[in-house]
Amino acid sequence: MNTPDKERNTVTKRDLATRVRLAIKPDVKLHQAQVADVISHTLDAIRDALVNGNTVELRNFGVFKIEVRKERVGRNPKDPSVDIRIPERKVVKFRSGKEMKNQLEAAASTDT
Amino acid sequence: MNTPDKERNTVTKRDLATRVRLAIKPDVKLHQAQVADVISHTLDAIRDALVNGNTVELRNFGVFKIEVRKERVGRNPKDPSVDIRIPERKVVKFRSGKEMKNQLEAAASTDT
Repeated sequence: MNTPDKERNTVTKRDLATRVRLAIKPDVKLHQAQVADVISHTLDAIRDALVNGNTVELRNFGVFKIEVRKERVGRNPKDPSVDIRIPERKVVKFRSGKEMKNQLEAAASTDT
Repeated sequence: MNTPDKERNTVTKRDLATRVRLAIKPDVKLHQAQVADVISHTLDAIRDALVNGNTVELRNFGVFKIEVRKERVGRNPKDPSVDIRIPERKVVKFRSGKEMKNQLEAAASTDT
């Protein structure tokens, strides 16, 4: 695909708002600010759901879930004689959905 | 927090649309369908950006980027004598932002 995206840029929330406004059906009249507002609130809603212990399952996109990293003992490379207790912590894991995987595979095979 | 979320449910795109519509300022009059439409297009736009090799950096939320898993040789556990070539593939990695990490940490400490 010869899109400008091929330059491997960073896409931000503002870029998404522009793309979404252009992609959306023309009869759905939405201003850029409304789109940006919905995007921000959507990300907040995903974050809140995760923080409250939920899994967020978005069809055609992927699944966000919380995983617990158990407490472990690490070492300071500058002073390896001292053990450092790294407490248990929660991390967000994202697993891409089938649609995204298929598209990545298709993109990879046209690259070569 | 005594939200119903504490039951550790799965949150879907439809749930997000409801939550976003309720969270958004009341003077921004948007129908549920419009919100759902923006959410779907946003997820599509993130996916397209990733498939085209971009990094997607969403402030207060996190960063999506593509990582390449190199080709490797695996084994069929049922017939370990045969090597299986697992071709190079691209995967989506998500790293949560500072805001999300802080909130997860705060939620973890109120759990105990």
